[in-house]
Amino acid sequence: MNTFDNIAAPATGIGGAVSIIRISGPDALAIGRRVWRGRRELGPESRRELLLGRVGIDSALAVFMPGPASYTGDDVVELHCHGGQSAADQALRSVFAAGCRLAEPGEFTFRAFVNGKLDLAQAEAVNDVISAGSDLALRIAEKQLDGVLSRRLEAAYDELNALRAECESHLDFPDEELAWEPDVPARLEALTAQLRELYDTRDIGGALRDGVSVVLAGRPNAGKSSLLNRLLGYERAIVTPIPGTTRDTVEAQTVICNLPVRITDTAGLRESADPIEQMGVERSRKSIAAASVTFWLLDASGGELEAELAEMERADAVNRIAVWNKIDLVPERALPELPCPAVRISARTGAGLDELREAFAVMVAKSPRPAVPEVAVNARAARLLAEALELLPEATARFREEEYELAAIGIRTAMNRVGEITGKTVEPDILDNIFSRFCIGK
Amino acid sequence: MNTFDNIAAPATGIGGAVSIIRISGPDALAIGRRVWRGRRELGPESRRELLLGRVGIDSALAVFMPGPASYTGDDVVELHCHGGQSAADQALRSVFAAGCRLAEPGEFTFRAFVNGKLDLAQAEAVNDVISAGSDLALRIAEKQLDGVLSRRLEAAYDELNALRAECESHLDFPDEELAWEPDVPARLEALTAQLRELYDTRDIGGALRDGVSVVLAGRPNAGKSSLLNRLLGYERAIVTPIPGTTRDTVEAQTVICNLPVRITDTAGLRESADPIEQMGVERSRKSIAAASVTFWLLDASGGELEAELAEMERADAVNRIAVWNKIDLVPERALPELPCPAVRISARTGAGLDELREAFAVMVAKSPRPAVPEVAVNARAARLLAEALELLPEATARFREEEYELAAIGIRTAMNRVGEITGKTVEPDILDNIFSRFCIGK
Repeated sequence: MNTFDNIAAPATGIGGAVSIIRISGPDALAIGRRVWRGRRELGPESRRELLLGRVGIDSALAVFMPGPASYTGDDVVELHCHGGQSAADQALRSVFAAGCRLAEPGEFTFRAFVNGKLDLAQAEAVNDVISAGSDLALRIAEKQLDGVLSRRLEAAYDELNALRAECESHLDFPDEELAWEPDVPARLEALTAQLRELYDTRDIGGALRDGVSVVLAGRPNAGKSSLLNRLLGYERAIVTPIPGTTRDTVEAQTVICNLPVRITDTAGLRESADPIEQMGVERSRKSIAAASVTFWLLDASGGELEAELAEMERADAVNRIAVWNKIDLVPERALPELPCPAVRISARTGAGLDELREAFAVMVAKSPRPAVPEVAVNARAARLLAEALELLPEATARFREEEYELAAIGIRTAMNRVGEITGKTVEPDILDNIFSRFCIGK
Repeated sequence: MNTFDNIAAPATGIGGAVSIIRISGPDALAIGRRVWRGRRELGPESRRELLLGRVGIDSALAVFMPGPASYTGDDVVELHCHGGQSAADQALRSVFAAGCRLAEPGEFTFRAFVNGKLDLAQAEAVNDVISAGSDLALRIAEKQLDGVLSRRLEAAYDELNALRAECESHLDFPDEELAWEPDVPARLEALTAQLRELYDTRDIGGALRDGVSVVLAGRPNAGKSSLLNRLLGYERAIVTPIPGTTRDTVEAQTVICNLPVRITDTAGLRESADPIEQMGVERSRKSIAAASVTFWLLDASGGELEAELAEMERADAVNRIAVWNKIDLVPERALPELPCPAVRISARTGAGLDELREAFAVMVAKSPRPAVPEVAVNARAARLLAEALELLPEATARFREEEYELAAIGIRTAMNRVGEITGKTVEPDILDNIFSRFCIGK
């Protein structure tokens, strides 16, 4: 991404009373002046002040936020127009005509990173804050944006740098009687333990950031759509007593035990002559294969328990919770022991739903009531930490055997991996990949 | 609605980079100070200036806009937080805890009306601007917000008031030799013509404001879903060669010839033993009955033209355009003349689509290329104008017959109707009805 031209994009979502068009770049002020007119003029005199005027015939507020004390670090002008798609589009067209291009997704934050306003872990947290799907996810993202993770990584980086220097001084002055730091291996081990602790937050980090994908699977008429509606608290899916009512997959989002969840309701698994239902069953199998957690519904009141259980075994779904549904019809029935977690519910009455939610939280976050972790790394950081964690024990062993050169190379490489997380050392294509996942306007 | 307490709501839509929480009321500043902290303090010193600080641990900008020079006319504080549902919810909870209630839909604009910042026709235009579904709809709404309609109505109101005074002076001094305005009847007729001209804009006004509801109807496999996808320009509906693929109605929005349109694709009309398809056919019939315009698809390549035409006649849809589809298969076939507008298209190739769009624009806006009218009244204004237009010819006749008292009553009533449009004379329950149609946060 070019960081010297002028970019603009809507900074607000569709459907509100107000739309903000954000302009950033060296000519932001000139562009703002071209498209917006008010009684007072935009300029250094009006810095950070919301002025009333017009863009075309639509009334709009404008504010000039000069760099470097702006979000991007460059000069920024914001136009606050009436909400709605048409008004935002019209203002945006004026801005483009005045000499801007549409910002790429994440490009405002990318400029903030380039201008040193945020490190890379903080920039990623901006996206996490926006897309936070639960209070817990928001909290962890805000902490990361605030620099909690960055400070831990900076400390680790500095310690690795010191240990690297220590190794290299052994190389540079092999015969000198220097005042050796005696505890390099112990320090390396302590650091490794710290990085492993960070690494171990990856599962909860992934669950909070991306949401947990849950699929509702089972035979036709097992009550999958009823359970979906129960979990959501509203009637998302059409429910009828007719097996095969759900022909296509139905998706919805919700929060279970403070974990953001994407639930997919699927067509019931059975042989069918109806080609549209066949396509649905095929989609069901794909959803099951892709999900993180499967709620496998079994009809506790049915006459084919063995066949249902065999179907469940065949599907080989990961992280499966067996959900015996319709227990209100057969409250006393003895049900077989299963090798996976199992709960007894009634989607119709709501009985057992809390147990199902807790079994889910235990499976995903190892606790029925997940709490706010101090930090939780994302997939990119986890991958880099994994690389560092592979190198460090080896480097420690090399140091102990006085192979200082190999130890120094290992420590330096691990240090660079840790530095990549906050963006000290990072490749342009990695940056593209990170920022392209942002929304437009951030 | 109470206009003395403190109200707050998100002013932006979901899904952007920034969320604005707007607070209005006598304690807006105190509430803003309670929830937001920055290096500088919110207050008269910082009026209209965006200050950087925090709401909880989330970084946020805050701005104080003192009344009366604010949107509502009361003191207003805006908090600009990170986008996303969770961050906005969190900020809003803080604001409520600090002593605000959630604003009703339209309540900010209602306060602007009460405080004399906007008249009622302009307030309605705020909502029209936000919900404008096409450039044309936006343009007309912006003009109304700017006061174009209000000024015409004010002029009409003043003229009615002068004419009423004229009538009453005939009553008060029946025997005096006053310098009678000789042309009262002529002036009444000129004014009536002006008001009728306004009234005649109601159809295009309704089409622009509410969008035109178009339903795609016809037998299974006539190509309704293919036409929907063509009109939208993307694959909204699943299309298969299997009749009955669309079982439920599918809705989508688009713009045709600058007119905002809500299109409903329906299940094909046929007898079916499948109870889910039966429910779909029932929904189709309801959609057809409710639509403003019906595109009735006929299979030009089929062998049952007579039966299809009979089905179309039975349905008795208003504003029907017969759409002969699949002409690519039978380019030479002679098709029967129909008593309604008819076009020949191929949803598969796109042939004839422009003709269909133009036939639609002619039906709705009397022109294949609708242009920007100066004003276009909404349903409420049209109803009030209709009442005035019924009174005025009668009052003119009464004046001519020197029944000045009856003439004066008629003119005064018509004047009040015109005054209701801009809110000079209006009942509280009418106001509730108008503002409750706004979005939250406006």
